[in-house]
Amino acid sequence: MIKDPVHGDIEVDEDVRMLLDTPPVQRLRMIRQLGFSFLVYPGANHTRFEHALGTMHLATHLCRSLSLDRDETRLLRSAALLHDIGHGPFSHAIEPLMESFCDHGHDGVDHLLESGEIAGILADIGLDPTEVAAVISGRHHLAAAIHGELDVDRMDYLNRDAHYTGVPYGAVDAHRIIRSSVLQPTGLVLEESGVQAAESLLVARTLMRPAVYYHHVSRIAERMFLVAAIAHCEDGGNPGSLVRMDDPDCIVAFRESKSRIARDIIHRLLTRDLYKRAVYVGVSSINRARIPQPDLPESISIAEEIASHAGVHSHEVSVDIPPFPGDMMIGVLVKSRHDIVSLEDMSPLIRGMNDIRRSQWRLGVYCPQEHREAVSLAATEVFKIRPATKQDKLMIETEEGEGR
Amino acid sequence: MIKDPVHGDIEVDEDVRMLLDTPPVQRLRMIRQLGFSFLVYPGANHTRFEHALGTMHLATHLCRSLSLDRDETRLLRSAALLHDIGHGPFSHAIEPLMESFCDHGHDGVDHLLESGEIAGILADIGLDPTEVAAVISGRHHLAAAIHGELDVDRMDYLNRDAHYTGVPYGAVDAHRIIRSSVLQPTGLVLEESGVQAAESLLVARTLMRPAVYYHHVSRIAERMFLVAAIAHCEDGGNPGSLVRMDDPDCIVAFRESKSRIARDIIHRLLTRDLYKRAVYVGVSSINRARIPQPDLPESISIAEEIASHAGVHSHEVSVDIPPFPGDMMIGVLVKSRHDIVSLEDMSPLIRGMNDIRRSQWRLGVYCPQEHREAVSLAATEVFKIRPATKQDKLMIETEEGEGR
Amino acid sequence: MIKDPVHGDIEVDEDVRMLLDTPPVQRLRMIRQLGFSFLVYPGANHTRFEHALGTMHLATHLCRSLSLDRDETRLLRSAALLHDIGHGPFSHAIEPLMESFCDHGHDGVDHLLESGEIAGILADIGLDPTEVAAVISGRHHLAAAIHGELDVDRMDYLNRDAHYTGVPYGAVDAHRIIRSSVLQPTGLVLEESGVQAAESLLVARTLMRPAVYYHHVSRIAERMFLVAAIAHCEDGGNPGSLVRMDDPDCIVAFRESKSRIARDIIHRLLTRDLYKRAVYVGVSSINRARIPQPDLPESISIAEEIASHAGVHSHEVSVDIPPFPGDMMIGVLVKSRHDIVSLEDMSPLIRGMNDIRRSQWRLGVYCPQEHREAVSLAATEVFKIRPATKQDKLMIETEEGEGR
Amino acid sequence: MIKDPVHGDIEVDEDVRMLLDTPPVQRLRMIRQLGFSFLVYPGANHTRFEHALGTMHLATHLCRSLSLDRDETRLLRSAALLHDIGHGPFSHAIEPLMESFCDHGHDGVDHLLESGEIAGILADIGLDPTEVAAVISGRHHLAAAIHGELDVDRMDYLNRDAHYTGVPYGAVDAHRIIRSSVLQPTGLVLEESGVQAAESLLVARTLMRPAVYYHHVSRIAERMFLVAAIAHCEDGGNPGSLVRMDDPDCIVAFRESKSRIARDIIHRLLTRDLYKRAVYVGVSSINRARIPQPDLPESISIAEEIASHAGVHSHEVSVDIPPFPGDMMIGVLVKSRHDIVSLEDMSPLIRGMNDIRRSQWRLGVYCPQEHREAVSLAATEVFKIRPATKQDKLMIETEEGEGR
Repeated sequence: MIKDPVHGDIEVDEDVRMLLDTPPVQRLRMIRQLGFSFLVYPGANHTRFEHALGTMHLATHLCRSLSLDRDETRLLRSAALLHDIGHGPFSHAIEPLMESFCDHGHDGVDHLLESGEIAGILADIGLDPTEVAAVISGRHHLAAAIHGELDVDRMDYLNRDAHYTGVPYGAVDAHRIIRSSVLQPTGLVLEESGVQAAESLLVARTLMRPAVYYHHVSRIAERMFLVAAIAHCEDGGNPGSLVRMDDPDCIVAFRESKSRIARDIIHRLLTRDLYKRAVYVGVSSINRARIPQPDLPESISIAEEIASHAGVHSHEVSVDIPPFPGDMMIGVLVKSRHDIVSLEDMSPLIRGMNDIRRSQWRLGVYCPQEHREAVSLAATEVFKIRPATKQDKLMIETEEGEGR
Repeated sequence: MIKDPVHGDIEVDEDVRMLLDTPPVQRLRMIRQLGFSFLVYPGANHTRFEHALGTMHLATHLCRSLSLDRDETRLLRSAALLHDIGHGPFSHAIEPLMESFCDHGHDGVDHLLESGEIAGILADIGLDPTEVAAVISGRHHLAAAIHGELDVDRMDYLNRDAHYTGVPYGAVDAHRIIRSSVLQPTGLVLEESGVQAAESLLVARTLMRPAVYYHHVSRIAERMFLVAAIAHCEDGGNPGSLVRMDDPDCIVAFRESKSRIARDIIHRLLTRDLYKRAVYVGVSSINRARIPQPDLPESISIAEEIASHAGVHSHEVSVDIPPFPGDMMIGVLVKSRHDIVSLEDMSPLIRGMNDIRRSQWRLGVYCPQEHREAVSLAATEVFKIRPATKQDKLMIETEEGEGR
Repeated sequence: MIKDPVHGDIEVDEDVRMLLDTPPVQRLRMIRQLGFSFLVYPGANHTRFEHALGTMHLATHLCRSLSLDRDETRLLRSAALLHDIGHGPFSHAIEPLMESFCDHGHDGVDHLLESGEIAGILADIGLDPTEVAAVISGRHHLAAAIHGELDVDRMDYLNRDAHYTGVPYGAVDAHRIIRSSVLQPTGLVLEESGVQAAESLLVARTLMRPAVYYHHVSRIAERMFLVAAIAHCEDGGNPGSLVRMDDPDCIVAFRESKSRIARDIIHRLLTRDLYKRAVYVGVSSINRARIPQPDLPESISIAEEIASHAGVHSHEVSVDIPPFPGDMMIGVLVKSRHDIVSLEDMSPLIRGMNDIRRSQWRLGVYCPQEHREAVSLAATEVFKIRPATKQDKLMIETEEGEGR
Repeated sequence: MIKDPVHGDIEVDEDVRMLLDTPPVQRLRMIRQLGFSFLVYPGANHTRFEHALGTMHLATHLCRSLSLDRDETRLLRSAALLHDIGHGPFSHAIEPLMESFCDHGHDGVDHLLESGEIAGILADIGLDPTEVAAVISGRHHLAAAIHGELDVDRMDYLNRDAHYTGVPYGAVDAHRIIRSSVLQPTGLVLEESGVQAAESLLVARTLMRPAVYYHHVSRIAERMFLVAAIAHCEDGGNPGSLVRMDDPDCIVAFRESKSRIARDIIHRLLTRDLYKRAVYVGVSSINRARIPQPDLPESISIAEEIASHAGVHSHEVSVDIPPFPGDMMIGVLVKSRHDIVSLEDMSPLIRGMNDIRRSQWRLGVYCPQEHREAVSLAATEVFKIRPATKQDKLMIETEEGEGR
């Protein structure tokens, strides 16, 4: 039994205990769930370890509610516990580097499951590592439980991030959603009694985005961290070992890096001496067709172009192009006595929320305070940004200086 | 110092204590805040008394934050404490009768302030009853504090109703809104730092409507109660004294009424033997131009028409036409460094929520289970209701049977 | 599924639903759980109905954890739901009258189970009313689940009273206690993993006593209520029907009583114009051997004696002699790997708490403010009260004026 | 304004902001508040940084409640913010080393305030570093606010540790204590209205000790950490720089230490491969006069003696002698209308709690699992431990295996 401030007591059986005690899972104790959000919300020091436990806990409830058999239950619980072992230091902050240099994201965990201590334990408890990896990466008929629109991963992290940041919007009625989920031949389906709880999850996601996940101060810190990571790797650091580090190792690696840029930036990050926004605009200020791919090489090459226009060093410009929000709850089906309909069709709230999410999207260009004017001009030129509307201007001012 | 489960400790100074100990305020201890919602949410037994205290408490914070002077502070605190003394038994449930027979709503409190014990105390503490009444009914330049879009009344009841029903959606960051409110010559204005908290209040209101305030079981009970009240008055009961009763008096008055209808209905209510929905449709099923005025005489005359078509007694049909939701946050102004704009203009969330609220509107016709089919046919005819869409049908089924 | 602010969602199956919809259970909606505590804690308007639901909910968890069979589960759940249907208006406030005039307390429910609608339903679901009554009154081998030192009744009300009063001390880790309970041939036994949770329940009880259950303002109000009840019965009111009333009926019965005393007192209660403490002393100020039986006839006869000495009417003096606290957790056994020991033997906390509870005991004599001096002198004489120690004096002053 | 999950919004003025942005305060972001408690409570990753903010926040409320002037307020708020900058990595875990090698504890911060960036800022805002240091170390007439029995430091950490561990017992009514504190010529005094809140703080401390602060798994990890630290310093590490590190630096320093012992132990700690209890006894099993001084040199020399008896390496034995609990609330005075008395004199709860705390004291000897038997025998011999009573045995079994 493990005490968790979000779920209360979490039961751990022998299978889970063995997986829990392996180095790849214990490593998650030293990886912050929300990357650099602690620079905005001082309480946000929670780790992937407790999130893994919490997700496993909700998976247990889901399996019981769906009356899954012993084997399926063991599969889903193990996958829930292991679903995040592929994360690098500071979680999502390092992800773009992982995708560019290692050709997989944090959910590509096949290599971690098929060798080492975990492989042995999975064999002992009768699970196929390939099947566990398939659940984690979404290629399994039960994957929606962990990797879908209404999955236990999301229910855990919304509640957990709310608990540690103090932002109230993340509260989700996880147990109502779990009890309203039923398994049909086509996959997980929601019963009508769960519609309002599903809507509230959607509202939680929508309100947590600008307040936490896309708070500009976290974004700035994460993009600075990425600049440091690239500089470190260009100066002899190995990307493959970097993404396997935990937070403390990574901090010290940058502190002792051969790259002066990496050393400078980690110092700035940990004394909260951050870049500022030179550009921060919504979709109305930019030709949507011109929004570039949000991948790392593209961001770097645009940052270099802007830096060159502005006459500053390229590591002093960071370009942040988040993926444009797609529709939520695509494919969630609701089962009534007589019929099955898609959730979007029956819920005006969901249709409304999709519009709102798109209006929350921001393109950012960040640089040290002293270059803000030059970089702003250069970036406006490069992106052909239209004069900001009154609303956009207000949004920058509103968010300025929040958190610490 | 009074302990409140929502706000913690509430400070009560001598002025407030004197007003608190008057019979019209003590009477609020016996009036349920949410009428018959306790039939859906067993915890919803909270009263107007604690809501009055909580509203006064938030008003104190607001006055301090606005740096109001002693006189204005005393005025606003007293108005906050007294703002609901005009309520009748079961709060909003009796309101239509009050409006029809007494020509004022619960905020018409002039007569209660200008005589009796309260008048004396107001005089003692140097307040003009007419001015207090003006704040309460919205005819004063400080009235927005208690009677506006972002008022302390609303901040208290959303949080309070969430606490007692257990529905999580009502949580509002009241202190952030209060601290972001500033007084301008034109009235209360919101600073930009409060925009997100204001949005969350709006989301809270939107989610609490179908879950609590317009939950069909509460609505059915409230409309049945109104049928009983009318029958009681037709059989010799006095509407003027009825609206001055508290909940226990009213229950016993109906139990001992000369009207058999009133006696039957109060028994049904308190054993939870309720009418059912014969018709329950959204705005897409009815010609919006044909939606009648939501006042009592109109509802009664339509109920009689339907009853006559269906061949049942007129008290066995209740017609529920809620007011069609207008736009929220109309007139809330946001102040930036350079400019003042309206909140709707800058917040896509607010525009979205207004649409959602309109889609939540329902016209209901309720009757005993055994007449459901006949009344449904008759009402469909009378209202020219279009065949329900799949969504409407789903909504009825979803909500069926919730609560107890 | 019913929403409860304390436990979240409560599942209701068909058996429970049928019992829930009977008049004796629905009646509990109109009986306040904490009698007149709402005069101290304005939020304390919660009812026996929701407590019955919550107790049934915890009983369900306990049955599952003990792996009871279908029949035992149905028995315990029904007993939990019905365990408080014997309460009179304002719960414990009327209890002394019930015991004196009706010869049973609120847990003597045989007559309510063996006839009427409940008897029929119990027969339908295959339960013997006598057996259900035996569980409720503590004469059954499973009774400890509902009627013991670590029962689900207590776990529910401590948490619930904390939620509604706002007093934080009642929080109990119910699920830990439930999961640590095991059934042995001799009865319920606690596993060692539950010791700390059991201790916390004990601390909760100890801290809630002076803060809530024995708060002097509630006690004064309850004793005044009892004076009214006796006067009402002496003037023609029927004790047997009085104890079957709900709160609203009782309020109106007193308002319309032939007894002027009953009419006066209910008016005083509902405008919070309460008696004051003439005497309020702990065990150190009185010869313990002289503490009289805490029953109603004895209290009345002492009150008359004091009133006569003081020269006031006998209904103007109320004597409050709470039962002297016995030891808690008597008979709770803890099971280790090798041994079974009693909880008191292993927990110094429990031994300490028993002493503390005894020091919290107070003998009170209450009367209208204007007779305070005379009654104080007379009562000091009658009880041979020793000069109050400095501590006792401090305690009176400390508690003075709390709540409203 | 900074969002804090414990206190809600925390206001930061310009003085505080300047101090907050200095490296010694920012460093606290990387020091865990509860050392190695995260190995028991996975949520316990909170840092000294947020605790410093929270303490400053409560100090602000206290200053306002005491009506302190601008200068005293600035002094107390700054002292509250800076009071923990002297902590080393993993907070209390490194403290014994700091005391032995550096001759001061974490509250000896004179050297940190009198030079560097903080000295400059203190000068700018008109504060004398010596006076700030005097408040922090308890040598100032206002020091009790931060360094007393009812100080804001304690109110913050009890609530905060409860929030992050999920252990419910830490909830303290900080605002009630603050509002009941008054300044007398002799120092801070409690008004009677605060007695119950002060008692609840005491209960919180008493229940949090065995559950969190002295949980054996945390103690084992902290003592292992100390063994590693000593080994690291013996192999060339510098104690003076070690205590100035933050957590990540310290982890990596041990990972890369010249000492194999330090490298092994940090690996064991971060994969949760911990020593076990060879001896764990309460005060009844040992001659109290024989309990040695709880300082580092004494512990080490006893560990060496035991190791030599048991035939194991001395770093494989860790001796844990916590200071024997003194009386709580010594010197807290309570002010009534007529008198001032000490809190212990008027509160039986406090006297009871002091006994309970002494019964919670444990002497521990820890070693790797494989040497448990040998070390147990040797330690029993060295300490002349009496055969454990049944209760002691139970306590070990109860606590075994808790947390993860």
